[in-house]
Amino acid sequence: MTTKAIAGNFFEDFRLGQTIRHATPRTVTAGDQALYTALYGSRFAVQSAESFARAIGYRAAPLDDLLVFHVVFGKTVPDISLNAVANLGYADCRFLKPVHAGETLTATSEVIGLKENSNGKTGTIYVRSRGQNQHGEDVLSFVRWVMVRKRDERAKAPEAHVPELPNSVAAATLASACPPIDGKAWDDGLAGSPHRFGAYKVGEKIDHGDGMTVEEAEHQIATRLYQNTARVHFNQLAEAQGRFGRRLVYGGHVMSLARALSFNGLANAFHIAAINSGRHVAPLFAGGTVFAWSEIVARDELPGRADVGALRILTRATRDVPCASFPTADATAEAPGVILELDYWALIPR
Amino acid sequence: MTTKAIAGNFFEDFRLGQTIRHATPRTVTAGDQALYTALYGSRFAVQSAESFARAIGYRAAPLDDLLVFHVVFGKTVPDISLNAVANLGYADCRFLKPVHAGETLTATSEVIGLKENSNGKTGTIYVRSRGQNQHGEDVLSFVRWVMVRKRDERAKAPEAHVPELPNSVAAATLASACPPIDGKAWDDGLAGSPHRFGAYKVGEKIDHGDGMTVEEAEHQIATRLYQNTARVHFNQLAEAQGRFGRRLVYGGHVMSLARALSFNGLANAFHIAAINSGRHVAPLFAGGTVFAWSEIVARDELPGRADVGALRILTRATRDVPCASFPTADATAEAPGVILELDYWALIPR
Amino acid sequence: MTTKAIAGNFFEDFRLGQTIRHATPRTVTAGDQALYTALYGSRFAVQSAESFARAIGYRAAPLDDLLVFHVVFGKTVPDISLNAVANLGYADCRFLKPVHAGETLTATSEVIGLKENSNGKTGTIYVRSRGQNQHGEDVLSFVRWVMVRKRDERAKAPEAHVPELPNSVAAATLASACPPIDGKAWDDGLAGSPHRFGAYKVGEKIDHGDGMTVEEAEHQIATRLYQNTARVHFNQLAEAQGRFGRRLVYGGHVMSLARALSFNGLANAFHIAAINSGRHVAPLFAGGTVFAWSEIVARDELPGRADVGALRILTRATRDVPCASFPTADATAEAPGVILELDYWALIPR
Repeated sequence: MTTKAIAGNFFEDFRLGQTIRHATPRTVTAGDQALYTALYGSRFAVQSAESFARAIGYRAAPLDDLLVFHVVFGKTVPDISLNAVANLGYADCRFLKPVHAGETLTATSEVIGLKENSNGKTGTIYVRSRGQNQHGEDVLSFVRWVMVRKRDERAKAPEAHVPELPNSVAAATLASACPPIDGKAWDDGLAGSPHRFGAYKVGEKIDHGDGMTVEEAEHQIATRLYQNTARVHFNQLAEAQGRFGRRLVYGGHVMSLARALSFNGLANAFHIAAINSGRHVAPLFAGGTVFAWSEIVARDELPGRADVGALRILTRATRDVPCASFPTADATAEAPGVILELDYWALIPR
Repeated sequence: MTTKAIAGNFFEDFRLGQTIRHATPRTVTAGDQALYTALYGSRFAVQSAESFARAIGYRAAPLDDLLVFHVVFGKTVPDISLNAVANLGYADCRFLKPVHAGETLTATSEVIGLKENSNGKTGTIYVRSRGQNQHGEDVLSFVRWVMVRKRDERAKAPEAHVPELPNSVAAATLASACPPIDGKAWDDGLAGSPHRFGAYKVGEKIDHGDGMTVEEAEHQIATRLYQNTARVHFNQLAEAQGRFGRRLVYGGHVMSLARALSFNGLANAFHIAAINSGRHVAPLFAGGTVFAWSEIVARDELPGRADVGALRILTRATRDVPCASFPTADATAEAPGVILELDYWALIPR
Repeated sequence: MTTKAIAGNFFEDFRLGQTIRHATPRTVTAGDQALYTALYGSRFAVQSAESFARAIGYRAAPLDDLLVFHVVFGKTVPDISLNAVANLGYADCRFLKPVHAGETLTATSEVIGLKENSNGKTGTIYVRSRGQNQHGEDVLSFVRWVMVRKRDERAKAPEAHVPELPNSVAAATLASACPPIDGKAWDDGLAGSPHRFGAYKVGEKIDHGDGMTVEEAEHQIATRLYQNTARVHFNQLAEAQGRFGRRLVYGGHVMSLARALSFNGLANAFHIAAINSGRHVAPLFAGGTVFAWSEIVARDELPGRADVGALRILTRATRDVPCASFPTADATAEAPGVILELDYWALIPR
């Protein structure tokens, strides 16, 4: 018997300021984008069509922003959250450069906060994770915090340090992954909507209408595509004995379902520039049907950019609740309701 | 609350002669072809292998014809059939140019017929849909007719106009998507059959033998790949209250299953040149096992083409009925039987 | 009615020395590799990242070795094992050249052994199957033996001939698919482990830890991707009446699951150079959870190669049994236990 197989880090394995390089580098391809489309049905024109992307100013169609997020996130799992009790939240997530098919992504994380819980059994760690392309350029940066088990409950608590995190990403940094967009070349008919930046008002609510039922094979295929090894998504033998009796759907799968559903009402909001915060309010299991609605919570004109504006959007995804009346009650394992609150900035042509 | 989310067109929204440009443009890639193979197990050599396709005269392996059909069809759904009661049929479907990985497809539809039903609640619309590549060239053209709900039952009926449609596509137009084929370079062993054009007789019946059981995840992954948003395929919460209590499998999924099964008996019939008519006789649900058999209903020598001939094939797909005795009885929601009748022209080397 | 549909070969159809060319040639692409990742969650750096592969000496990232195996194996099924009662074993399987996205694979088999069983109803055939690339170069060679039904029980038994097969592949041939590896460029952090050749000892046992539950849609999608037409994997209507009442998971699917799980403990063992033997000890069905553990059974320094060494690894996969105590009891259709014993050589940097 050896210790070559990795059991993941526990709370006392993390040190403030520690930097972790994650395995495995991953070349993302047209194959990944096709699978992404097949898993979510996403229809945003910029990511769907080379001709559309090039006409408006991209050198090639960028991969879907959340596909990049999931691939980078997946790399962090074996080192950060294999022994996680709960994924508590995300903040300050910025998409910094477009990623195209053929590029290779790697990831690193820095520990920026630590706080042991009063029960002495668990603690919260805060990490800043970065995704880079094969040129070593940052393409994505985000903070997440996770509640992790201690290996040894008697291990001494580290000095508590909770990082200050912005409530939202500052406007100045929102457009770095977006080339100058030729608004005249933007074809509203092909994009699927006549509504550009000027048409959206703060406070506006949009029911995205459709529902998508999730199957075990679908979320497993997605989560493996991202090389995310979190055990709760895959091992029914163990989960049958667990808290819910069932495999949990990866929270990022819900984010992508909600984003794909949001095309109906936000078709021109083509690029996720930043995620201000993400909360997985309640779990999703196979057999659940996901719906989504969005509220426009802010608009920003982005100084220096006459081509695109930014909409701050709060998208709520629900389990087994259509969204015509814009529900806010949280789901439980038994009762339907809201399962995700995703507060993000999207760019949209002016 | 806004009206930015699209609820689809109703019968009274359509006008004779109206042209509709559909979202979303779509670059089809090797990723899509790999998924197509994985979803149906298709084995036709021309679409499966670059080396085979180039040896016989293609500039590159073409994408599977029905993959092109499904992608173009999917684009028309949000505008044409989101409020459809039933997909009544297809006719005059012609594959006009080969589509290769890397090309971008767009779609438009023209309303060529309208007829309100006597109940005043629904009507039938006829559309001619066209798929184009990034050069604006037509790659596919087909007519379909759909029964659509009226938004307002009191809306005045339009003047009825039912287009004349051919029973079958004329031979002269069959080979436009097929380059000259070098029959000497066609390797029967690699293609999987010694039987070329001359070996098939009118009236011949072929049981394709194998059965394929369909899972929910499979048809959902396929239908999303095509960016087809028809709600009946995805939303179990709503369908549980519907006519069948279950999600319906996209009819095109059945077409592709039947075509893939038909390799066993029609391995050299490499290209679907045209679909004369398609009828979804009965629904398919997950858990059903699809079988298929084919009858050769005509042969055509294609004037000017010594390289390939055309077989007119009527393929019937069944649910839960093996086809050794060539069944023709229609399935119902409860009883097994025929679910698809697909009358098409395939090209085959001489 | 015709005989154009193929019913597969029976025992008396095979002749010693006979060579069979298989349909269908297959271009393998980035789409196939993406699906492979999505189906198994494989994380080996060389196959996952172009930048990693090129840094150490490959001209491009090679496709996963078992993906190549499954594609070549799949082609042999319609001719060799469509009427198989059981897939009895593999031996002398050698990976001879790396396969990259864009290459086209074909397959041939030679009958190298025949032995009728004493019951007169079945016989065992031994075939040497070869996979070639579009240049006609061998990329893979393996022997398998299969128990096949007789069409006619009165058919005369052929003279029995059982080929001599090596217990393991000789060291001299192990590295032909592996270019010279630049060990300084090998980044242990990105690869996921500090343990290279010198760190592994004969007799060492590694529990790979994680469990993966298999869904019907997953193994069907995989098996169709490989264009493998064996009926037992797909046709629930027929299998409901069969020995197990359920569809059987393709044995190669188990091999790939076990190999992907083995990353945790064998992350640097990047290339399967040869499979000495493979035994599917018991069947797997959807709903089962697969675990794996490995034992290092030999080490070889590969004369002339200072860059890589070879580990001979015996990986056991189980159904519904975690592997912390290294189980060896075989599963049955009802009881959990070992379902696969895979004895292979992997290359690992020194």
